[in-house]
Amino acid sequence: MRASGFVGEVSEKEPIRLTDEQRLDWLRLIRSENVGPRTFRALINHFGGARAALGALPALARRGGSAAAPTVYSREEAEREIESSRKLGVRFVAIGEADYPPRLQMIDDPPPLIALRGQGAALTLPLVAIVGSRNASAAGVKLTQRLAQGLCQAGFGIVSGLARGIDAAAHRASLETGTVAVLAGGHDRVYPPEHVDLLEAILPAGAALSEMPLGWEPRARDFPRRNRLISGLSLGVVIVEAAKRSGSLITARLALEQGREVFAVPGSPLDPRAEGTNGLIKQGATPVTEAADIIAVLRPIMGLELPAREPEREAVEPAEIAEPAPDERTRIVALLSPTPVSIDDLVRLSHSSPRVVRMVLLELEIAGRLERHGGGLVSLL
Amino acid sequence: MRASGFVGEVSEKEPIRLTDEQRLDWLRLIRSENVGPRTFRALINHFGGARAALGALPALARRGGSAAAPTVYSREEAEREIESSRKLGVRFVAIGEADYPPRLQMIDDPPPLIALRGQGAALTLPLVAIVGSRNASAAGVKLTQRLAQGLCQAGFGIVSGLARGIDAAAHRASLETGTVAVLAGGHDRVYPPEHVDLLEAILPAGAALSEMPLGWEPRARDFPRRNRLISGLSLGVVIVEAAKRSGSLITARLALEQGREVFAVPGSPLDPRAEGTNGLIKQGATPVTEAADIIAVLRPIMGLELPAREPEREAVEPAEIAEPAPDERTRIVALLSPTPVSIDDLVRLSHSSPRVVRMVLLELEIAGRLERHGGGLVSLL
Repeated sequence: MRASGFVGEVSEKEPIRLTDEQRLDWLRLIRSENVGPRTFRALINHFGGARAALGALPALARRGGSAAAPTVYSREEAEREIESSRKLGVRFVAIGEADYPPRLQMIDDPPPLIALRGQGAALTLPLVAIVGSRNASAAGVKLTQRLAQGLCQAGFGIVSGLARGIDAAAHRASLETGTVAVLAGGHDRVYPPEHVDLLEAILPAGAALSEMPLGWEPRARDFPRRNRLISGLSLGVVIVEAAKRSGSLITARLALEQGREVFAVPGSPLDPRAEGTNGLIKQGATPVTEAADIIAVLRPIMGLELPAREPEREAVEPAEIAEPAPDERTRIVALLSPTPVSIDDLVRLSHSSPRVVRMVLLELEIAGRLERHGGGLVSLL
Repeated sequence: MRASGFVGEVSEKEPIRLTDEQRLDWLRLIRSENVGPRTFRALINHFGGARAALGALPALARRGGSAAAPTVYSREEAEREIESSRKLGVRFVAIGEADYPPRLQMIDDPPPLIALRGQGAALTLPLVAIVGSRNASAAGVKLTQRLAQGLCQAGFGIVSGLARGIDAAAHRASLETGTVAVLAGGHDRVYPPEHVDLLEAILPAGAALSEMPLGWEPRARDFPRRNRLISGLSLGVVIVEAAKRSGSLITARLALEQGREVFAVPGSPLDPRAEGTNGLIKQGATPVTEAADIIAVLRPIMGLELPAREPEREAVEPAEIAEPAPDERTRIVALLSPTPVSIDDLVRLSHSSPRVVRMVLLELEIAGRLERHGGGLVSLL
């Protein structure tokens, strides 16, 4: 099913290493219209490499029912982004490469490329995320410092989102050991702007990480997307203060979906900033009043070998496009609706081969008509 | 094994009813030296009734190795206590009688007689205990009120210990629906004294309950003993604020031992009054921020039929005293030490009959040389 000529002679344990040319193709593909992390993987798995997938995008979109061809990120744009990134001290690390954070590889939708600034070594620490409300109380900030310092003393690194309040306190308390800031926008669009200095203070021992292009201003919906990286990098996520329906609770939910431990700091039921954390504890999050509570849960997990994820393979030769028969495509599309359905069910109900079903889904995706969800579910947009 | 002539023709479901004469004997027996709730039951079970047990006390103590005869509560003392109690509006209810709180019957060491003041009906409500620190914060008092009111609206009655702080707030918020104050001393020795007025306000719809004699000033060690009644009366115990190593945590532990639900109100890790409750939550207590959290857990249990406990039978004729052979007694005593051991093990290791082992234990108990623990364990004093 796969084209031959994989990069190097990778075993499952040995990291891959992209050539500059391949890295350029990867960047072009992930930056192209309607290509997200899940589509990227489907494309690479189907076509055997980014170059072949890029070549197939126009045909896929047309067959998926799109009138206009998808906007493909040009070679020049990608070269410019890589060059500007380099000047900023940002490098691109591909999934499967040695510097790619091992736990992040295991999530459902890992970014194929991360733009990394600072010390890659910070990403090799056992990481714990500490997040919470921007509008933090003095007590919340104090507790965050205590927890972060306790975790750092025990050899953990701290991940957070560079936001005001709890996030900033978590980073500040872990500058020396190594702290990782995950950005919702491009590396040149630090949010909030007043934390540019904090970011500079993070980089000597820590790192900043983004999956978004340079120049990308973070929008509201980019924060939940970013939050999956915060939890994905970490063994566990600690929520210090969080109101109801806050972004920190989204991070907690994502952490659960990713199989990460969720910790929450309890607070008075009369304190609105404790509503979210108390709610998490009611739902089963581990209550935390000191770093030892977190360490006791994470120490036993820390040493565990991660299940090896097969790295995305990079074909030198473009793969053939298997074109579904027109009636097959019609049958598969008819089975789809805005209600998410599993790909397995689609294969069963359509009586088509898994390969054909996946191809039709790719077409629809590139045409901007399909959404991929977690757990192998898809729906029409 | 049992003497004939039980009181009435009691079925397991039908309550017993003591005659005045029997109630007097019960009071004399439970007030006699070295007779606690567990010994009381062992004596009644062995001798078939309180009158016979009273008659046997001197011989038991002598055979148990006591030089002095145990102080037996005299008929006159008991009559005086009943009369003084009556004047105070206090009546004695025996285990197995209709007014005896059904859940209290099920604990390991229920008081054979409770001295009850106020409305017996309050004890028939589904009860929830709310306890906490005497040195309560304003927030703790406010939360207690909210929780108590919410529980009362849902048809629960509130049990507490009449202490300053959380206890008093719990009683005050439930005066109308019915609240039960469990006293650590006699009914005429209200503690703290400034809560005499609160107690008076409790009685029109609620009740006060004690197992201690009139005139008994509560000592420090009487409070843990009292606390087992607070949890024993209740479906669950809510701890609102509690420092480390506080009496409320003893109540929580007793509640767990009695199979009661334990609820705790979370608080900031920086608040010392939340250390105990946060600790309970870490150990698995249900976190509570509103009455609904308690109701959700207790509603499903409320309706459950309690397993019927066989009431203590009251024999009209004194039973025979089975005297162990001297070498049997020596053998059994030699197996005992200050380390608690199970009665089952004693029977097995001594090769004596269970009846003989129980008799030797009774002798030692009445002689003041034996302590009974929960779970059928005994140790030498």
